[in-house]
Amino acid sequence: FSLYSVALTLIVEWLGWLFCRLWPRKISRGPLKEVFFFPTEVACTERLFTPDSPFPCPLPHNVNTSFTRLLGHILSASSSLDLCVFAFTNLDLSWAVLALHTRGIPIRILTDMDYTLITGSQIGAIRRAGRCDSGTVHMHHMFAVVDGRRLITGSLNWTLTAIHSNKENILATEEPDLVLPFITEFQMLWVVNDPARKHLPSIAEKTASLVQ
Amino acid sequence: FSLYSVALTLIVEWLGWLFCRLWPRKISRGPLKEVFFFPTEVACTERLFTPDSPFPCPLPHNVNTSFTRLLGHILSASSSLDLCVFAFTNLDLSWAVLALHTRGIPIRILTDMDYTLITGSQIGAIRRAGRCDSGTVHMHHMFAVVDGRRLITGSLNWTLTAIHSNKENILATEEPDLVLPFITEFQMLWVVNDPARKHLPSIAEKTASLVQ
Repeated sequence: FSLYSVALTLIVEWLGWLFCRLWPRKISRGPLKEVFFFPTEVACTERLFTPDSPFPCPLPHNVNTSFTRLLGHILSASSSLDLCVFAFTNLDLSWAVLALHTRGIPIRILTDMDYTLITGSQIGAIRRAGRCDSGTVHMHHMFAVVDGRRLITGSLNWTLTAIHSNKENILATEEPDLVLPFITEFQMLWVVNDPARKHLPSIAEKTASLVQ
Repeated sequence: FSLYSVALTLIVEWLGWLFCRLWPRKISRGPLKEVFFFPTEVACTERLFTPDSPFPCPLPHNVNTSFTRLLGHILSASSSLDLCVFAFTNLDLSWAVLALHTRGIPIRILTDMDYTLITGSQIGAIRRAGRCDSGTVHMHHMFAVVDGRRLITGSLNWTLTAIHSNKENILATEEPDLVLPFITEFQMLWVVNDPARKHLPSIAEKTASLVQ
């Protein structure tokens, strides 16, 4: 009897293993994996920042668009936000970053050198708010790592045009094999471009170099 | 004894389950998940096209760079290639697409309308080779689906500058939750922009509209 029971248990276990191998998605979908496409319809984003606002905005409410989902991922940060973005002119995304900053969450931003000074760039506003570290580098990345475990990456620039006009994609995932390389890449870019490590010439030095 | 053996088997099974939950990556890494960053060092790509060439190129051989890995993914196609790319001027990637075409693999390409006619665009060369279907659309996507199951997506444009100068990223995955939405997106864009469905005005129609 004991031999039969062991054999039976092993067969059940083997069948379970086989089922998992053949239909892995029916058993467990594993870590977060989400894809969203743009352009997206215009919807109220105010509720994400001030859910109890007495003056609700006139745009459609309770609509989950690609953009509200992206904002939701950013606002979900509880311990850190590392952001590498080519162009950053979108006001809602800037408010999301500033909201995290108000909550005291450490923020590190790397943007493209040439795009920091374009009209509407939000990098200045974020810098003026203080405490958010930001560096510049020549790059075309568009990715964010939330809390050191959630990756948001894709073709999307953080601009108004990209979100409401362009055909773009974003994916959000917590798959360690995909997230860890981006954490390493951010760290490497940050070490090289950290503004605190850079020697910025003083006015006296600038004047001296002009005189020479 | 039989009761003990059943209890023991169940405990072993539970421990196995617990181990899988706590350290999932040590057990199984699941479907392909790969990330590569650019810029990448220059290496010989000729070996990927003609491995038995009697005249090896002077560049470093047997080096696996981000670019050779990207080319390898494209060349691995055995049944289809669906490509959505903003700018396409890279010669090696064009050769890879043409190599698949020579093997008789169905290829569908969607590129950005404004970038098709820029200097060095490879879309014309691919179109002239015939049989590759290509459409144009206003878009900023950069993704490919190989054999309807492998997704390649990221910030990388298919240009020489992007590969050897820009800081860019690409990820390749066979995770169904990530691949399937891109297949649907491509299908949707293709249906809307398929050149075969578009009414292209004939010379007579063009002349008539000019005369009016």
